[in-house]
Amino acid sequence: MKRPRHGGNLVWAAALAGCRASELVDFSASINPLGPPQSAIAAIQGSLAALTAYPDPNYSELCSTLSEWHELPPDWVLPGNGAAELLTWACRELSALDVTYLLTPAFGDYWRSLQTFGAKVHPVLLSEAISPSGLRINKIIPQIGKAKKRGILLNNPHNPTGNLFPQERLKPYLEEFNLVVVDEAFMDFLPPGEEQSLIPLVKEYTNLVILRSLTKFYSLPGLRLGYAIAHPERLRRWQKWRDPWPVNILAAAAAVAVIQDKTFQQQTWDWLPPTRQELFEGIKNIPGLQPLEGAANFLLVETEKPSSQLQKQLLIKHKILIRDCLSFPELGDRFFRLAVRTTQDNQLLLQALSKCLLDTI
Amino acid sequence: MKRPRHGGNLVWAAALAGCRASELVDFSASINPLGPPQSAIAAIQGSLAALTAYPDPNYSELCSTLSEWHELPPDWVLPGNGAAELLTWACRELSALDVTYLLTPAFGDYWRSLQTFGAKVHPVLLSEAISPSGLRINKIIPQIGKAKKRGILLNNPHNPTGNLFPQERLKPYLEEFNLVVVDEAFMDFLPPGEEQSLIPLVKEYTNLVILRSLTKFYSLPGLRLGYAIAHPERLRRWQKWRDPWPVNILAAAAAVAVIQDKTFQQQTWDWLPPTRQELFEGIKNIPGLQPLEGAANFLLVETEKPSSQLQKQLLIKHKILIRDCLSFPELGDRFFRLAVRTTQDNQLLLQALSKCLLDTI
Repeated sequence: MKRPRHGGNLVWAAALAGCRASELVDFSASINPLGPPQSAIAAIQGSLAALTAYPDPNYSELCSTLSEWHELPPDWVLPGNGAAELLTWACRELSALDVTYLLTPAFGDYWRSLQTFGAKVHPVLLSEAISPSGLRINKIIPQIGKAKKRGILLNNPHNPTGNLFPQERLKPYLEEFNLVVVDEAFMDFLPPGEEQSLIPLVKEYTNLVILRSLTKFYSLPGLRLGYAIAHPERLRRWQKWRDPWPVNILAAAAAVAVIQDKTFQQQTWDWLPPTRQELFEGIKNIPGLQPLEGAANFLLVETEKPSSQLQKQLLIKHKILIRDCLSFPELGDRFFRLAVRTTQDNQLLLQALSKCLLDTI
Repeated sequence: MKRPRHGGNLVWAAALAGCRASELVDFSASINPLGPPQSAIAAIQGSLAALTAYPDPNYSELCSTLSEWHELPPDWVLPGNGAAELLTWACRELSALDVTYLLTPAFGDYWRSLQTFGAKVHPVLLSEAISPSGLRINKIIPQIGKAKKRGILLNNPHNPTGNLFPQERLKPYLEEFNLVVVDEAFMDFLPPGEEQSLIPLVKEYTNLVILRSLTKFYSLPGLRLGYAIAHPERLRRWQKWRDPWPVNILAAAAAVAVIQDKTFQQQTWDWLPPTRQELFEGIKNIPGLQPLEGAANFLLVETEKPSSQLQKQLLIKHKILIRDCLSFPELGDRFFRLAVRTTQDNQLLLQALSKCLLDTI
């Protein structure tokens, strides 16, 4: 079987581990282990009878729920078939510019969607971009030429490093770039007071696009659900480009339910910080591994032993799947990424990792 | 509330009728009234636990089920988030040609998706295109110039007329056009022996794309599920253009189940022809209405009374929704379209129609 380019391919992993996909402990996809909330499942069950009708093409209920949540009018929100669907259209707009700066290492799907419409991509390595005085990307621009139309695509918190950019560091980009696309797929893992979202700036800047996901925090990646926040004119343009019913009825119903599920949200915010810290310390204590501090629900780990070798050992001997970083060429075999899971799963992983690193294959 | 451009907007109709959407009898969306099959609902229920994982990006099980059904290798099939999602990519390819012939009246979403990538569209009216010796479209071509790259987009059976093109009438197009896109969204309503699908020709013609839907026959439009059949090279290109997980896990599971549900298929094929004939006769007997013979699960009806007026009356007085044809400018207010529903619903409609046509508003 061909090795998947993206993470989360359980079919491939299960074949290698010689078990069913459901038997794997999956640290490769950064999904909240506390979910899905019961409210989501109940909403799906309650909507099965509605499958015989087309979705409301305006997604009125979903848009109004999302817009209330973010304190924006409904037409500033556009739901999509996962954030990945909306990324395609955001990248169509970036492709119309002269150059798009891409913060790397970058999620593989950014490259895919920028290529779809032939964007001219200028990668900027995260380590080069960050200096004590803030991000350096805007300093590189004059070399390219002031007259050119420039866009930038980045995620915050950054995947796979987990780095969180303070809002004030990104704000200058809104003046410097013709289009700023910020993928905030993991931002909801930050408790409300600690978020660094650019959403509060969107009404001030028509050149800002924010992408959000509902499937990582609420553990529903199989359902596909994301949304974009941007100026209504831009979102209306996207809506004309794509088909009229991109979000299915079950996903829309689940979304409305989970956004209102304050209990599940608080549970997640209570669980993550101490559990991530515990996992971080555990990894730090294993010789040959060095974790990076991260603000989201995953940790990037530097490893002396090649990560693809480690991944294979963990699969075959422990039915544990970690995310190698081969789809991030800047990281390659020296890094792997781990989702933060329950304390029990994390302990299992730490024990397995210790054993694998003692093995002399 | 804004009048929807496409059919099937129950939110708008329910507001006008002053009732809940679920109380409407919906003749506007051409959906099989016998479904959804229990096999689909069971498959969805059985997959809820799998929502915590991403879909398999290769959709291996779904592709192999579809390909077995159509007796093709799996890589000749590409599942999509409804046929509408795949239409967008088909139209991107048509847009790269010098001209795209579009059979009109055409489903509104054809215009949308052709505009997405700026296709040069040459509409050909169905009544002009059909002559005793067959379709005339290919005879028009020399006037445009032999050197140009030409595409054609049509549906078979044709929506909204219900006209079925015999395979042998479409076959010459495969020699005449650089790209032939046939939307067979309603073809599965034809019993196997009566189908006029171009699928058997796809291995012979690399310039052929067939779009199919699974949501009309199996009554699951809220779930979004369609697929394309074409040369693997073309489908691989589309796959790189779009996001990696366009079909959600529940839709994929339902699709695998319904394709194997021979009982439901046979039920539908047994139900449709006599019920359609009965509805046809009933309408024909109402003065001021003239139905067209159709091969699919809907009938186009010519009306002396403006259809928008009729639609409003049926909604307010009878909570019945019919499909006006305002989104088909060639038909406008002189036509409406009806789904074939159960005998009971059809009788209700016939009585309501008779009453409305006696009214002198």
